[in-house]
Amino acid sequence: MRLAIYQMQAKAGNVAANLFRIESAVLKAAAQGANLLVAPELALPGYGAGPAMAALAEAPDGASWKRLASVSRDAGVAIIAGFAQKDGETVCNSALFVDGDKPPVVYRKSHLYGPYERGLFAAEKPSAHIIEHAGITFGMLICYDVEFPENVRRLAQAGAQAVLVPTALPASDHADFIARKMIPVRAFENQVFVAYVNHCGADDSFAYAGLSGVVAPDGTLLAAAGDRNEELLIADLDPSAFRQAAEQNPYLADLRLS
Amino acid sequence: MRLAIYQMQAKAGNVAANLFRIESAVLKAAAQGANLLVAPELALPGYGAGPAMAALAEAPDGASWKRLASVSRDAGVAIIAGFAQKDGETVCNSALFVDGDKPPVVYRKSHLYGPYERGLFAAEKPSAHIIEHAGITFGMLICYDVEFPENVRRLAQAGAQAVLVPTALPASDHADFIARKMIPVRAFENQVFVAYVNHCGADDSFAYAGLSGVVAPDGTLLAAAGDRNEELLIADLDPSAFRQAAEQNPYLADLRLS
Repeated sequence: MRLAIYQMQAKAGNVAANLFRIESAVLKAAAQGANLLVAPELALPGYGAGPAMAALAEAPDGASWKRLASVSRDAGVAIIAGFAQKDGETVCNSALFVDGDKPPVVYRKSHLYGPYERGLFAAEKPSAHIIEHAGITFGMLICYDVEFPENVRRLAQAGAQAVLVPTALPASDHADFIARKMIPVRAFENQVFVAYVNHCGADDSFAYAGLSGVVAPDGTLLAAAGDRNEELLIADLDPSAFRQAAEQNPYLADLRLS
Repeated sequence: MRLAIYQMQAKAGNVAANLFRIESAVLKAAAQGANLLVAPELALPGYGAGPAMAALAEAPDGASWKRLASVSRDAGVAIIAGFAQKDGETVCNSALFVDGDKPPVVYRKSHLYGPYERGLFAAEKPSAHIIEHAGITFGMLICYDVEFPENVRRLAQAGAQAVLVPTALPASDHADFIARKMIPVRAFENQVFVAYVNHCGADDSFAYAGLSGVVAPDGTLLAAAGDRNEELLIADLDPSAFRQAAEQNPYLADLRLS
């Protein structure tokens, strides 16, 4: 599978503007032969939308999905983008998988970080839904979820070859550690690919760390973004290229809990 | 607590020589005010002792413990050293905690790596025994154990402030990744100290990677050895110095499994 990751500077509160940016990135990714593009956490409303978040929440098959389904079908590129999901009175921090006109698939974040997120969203129970696309099986997590090894392990044990992670990592003393040490370790300790796709720039509430990347099962960076600008990066996910690392580090086979 | 780690070049098959080296290191550590010294995996028989391992196995309160207890008592420094543990017909890859004349405490490795270890040792069920010493609570793991996030999590959830890890990491393409990325991530994701204490040099069977280190709860290296020579390093473990990182990264409090 050829994966595109879109490190994006979203406009907080402006879904139309963010859809337009994602659509443009999808067309560029299509020109490079990508099968799937991943955009950041809450890419549609913008992570920093704050009090406007509930009003910007949509059903999985809402207006944004219709637009993304159209560009996905025309470009031949599936899309994962973070959105605020409306479910009755509840709003979830979710990721939408769009593959042309096929029914959308949603992952809801299980581990909300801090008072900002807990004030806006309801957390979902951890889950392990596996999707097959372009010859690769993958699962989704969102941001803080991936910092817990249990969440990546659950997906790997369910058969994921890749874990795709829209995120909104703020600039901080720990950002480089999380993006460039923890994310590679999550890949290595499960022998899976991990794509970590962040915002860049700033909105009224947050400054983002960038540092998006795609990590191979042996912990090496296949693609790595800088800390400032929008970037569209491409990486080929080929598990057969990492069989030797998997044989030398058979964590899933060797793990014993009792 | 002032911790000493001893990156050691053991003589495979020569317990007396290895005891002498450890005793010398304990005396040097005492002169620097250390409360506890950690030596590598199978430091007493040597990791590469191979077919001689069973004959070199001892009970926890055997002759080696008596010598270590004596130097521990005289120097006022507790000792953790890897040894081959005889238990009836079974041999375990174990770590011995010696604090003067107090009864020895043993940790048995739960995750054996590869055919060499599985041919020599019996694996133990994972456990979470916590020891208090010099104002710090700690648990022990051995080598491959610490590469599984579940094992460090279990100790952190049981109340460990530090995880002390005798190891025998061979030189390989993955050694730097494990020592300098995975070990810091194990510390950060649990907000605990991790000491990773390796062999250096080579014996007839293995070449070792060195790269021993002590990592703080915020993922920073408090002490770091090179990849070649014997080194005795000192680090002060003070959890109160890392409260801000613990508040910003409350993984143990935020983890949900269902």
